[in-house]
Amino acid sequence: MSEATSARGRLITLEGGEGAGKSTQARFVRDWLTDRGREVLLTREPGGSPLAEAIRGVVLGDWAEGVTPECEITLMFAARAAHWHATILPALQAGRDVVCDRFIDSSYAYQVWGKQVSLDAFNALQQLVLGEQRPDLTLLLDLDAELGLARARDRGDENRFEAESQQFRQRVREGFLTRAREEPQRVRVVNAECEAEQVSAQIAVILAEWSAGSA
Amino acid sequence: MSEATSARGRLITLEGGEGAGKSTQARFVRDWLTDRGREVLLTREPGGSPLAEAIRGVVLGDWAEGVTPECEITLMFAARAAHWHATILPALQAGRDVVCDRFIDSSYAYQVWGKQVSLDAFNALQQLVLGEQRPDLTLLLDLDAELGLARARDRGDENRFEAESQQFRQRVREGFLTRAREEPQRVRVVNAECEAEQVSAQIAVILAEWSAGSA
Repeated sequence: MSEATSARGRLITLEGGEGAGKSTQARFVRDWLTDRGREVLLTREPGGSPLAEAIRGVVLGDWAEGVTPECEITLMFAARAAHWHATILPALQAGRDVVCDRFIDSSYAYQVWGKQVSLDAFNALQQLVLGEQRPDLTLLLDLDAELGLARARDRGDENRFEAESQQFRQRVREGFLTRAREEPQRVRVVNAECEAEQVSAQIAVILAEWSAGSA
Repeated sequence: MSEATSARGRLITLEGGEGAGKSTQARFVRDWLTDRGREVLLTREPGGSPLAEAIRGVVLGDWAEGVTPECEITLMFAARAAHWHATILPALQAGRDVVCDRFIDSSYAYQVWGKQVSLDAFNALQQLVLGEQRPDLTLLLDLDAELGLARARDRGDENRFEAESQQFRQRVREGFLTRAREEPQRVRVVNAECEAEQVSAQIAVILAEWSAGSA
């Protein structure tokens, strides 16, 4: 990789349901890029800046009054707006690559497909916070929703979303796959049902091809 | 007032810039309605439910990274979604009147006119959170923006918004007045430059006329 560090960095996002191994593979992507001379920032959503982390604490909290789909999607985009402004954009502008564990496609899958918020509202929020900007590459770690839940439970880190119904998780998976069908150049589907090393091997092939094309 | 308490309550909102006396007049409206046999809930935005109050703490916080207009408007609507779901709608459905210190028109005035967020984004958020529902009556306490600021400072409760520029405060005032011109039946303009008792007297006239019309 011979790009000057003054060039704008690239945003690579990892998406998928619970238990897909996004955090593990996000570190793999960071290391893969670092090994090729890139400066890399590893971050996650919701969160990624002090303000966005405060919003994360609110949206993932267990509120007696419940969290409506409308409240949830606006909080997710508020956190994204802070993360984008304070963390992602400055890193990209400084020539660093950014690897982000969940991003815009999680809002599409969880809030539109899972919680059935209107697509019009999603599109308006996407336009408000990102305009026409999108990740340069998105790795969708796809696996059977119930297998993913079982893995998340083994790991012991269930959250409010992991307590949703089987139907909900299946809609979320279908939402992610729909996004991949709509934007096949950006969103690459990775089979995440195999062992972590095999998932990483698939990702390495995608990254090598993508880097050659975007260099 | 002879309405059965099983009828849906009415939502009355108070709007205006800093130092207009909204909190004082909100209590006056509550007392006016209570004196006429209504059960009344007095509430405020941002806030009004435990989740919404947590969001209030975030949005009014002094964040080193700043709060972008995009983050601010999504947080304000997230708080409104929680407030609407957990507090306002249940009270209205139980036949109580709700008096709210700031509501949807503050987002229009502060974020669209003040912070110049797009009207499309505002309209999409309004549709997401409120659908076609609007306050039954809105009292716009209008006064010169610099006079309002001086009053807020005398009171000693400046916040992040009160530190904005004179141009910002003038745009906010114009935003409120535009809303009143667009929806004159719902939004009634009250001259808030006079003494509190005179402001209350104007409001009493409006309430009497409105109650006669809506009974």
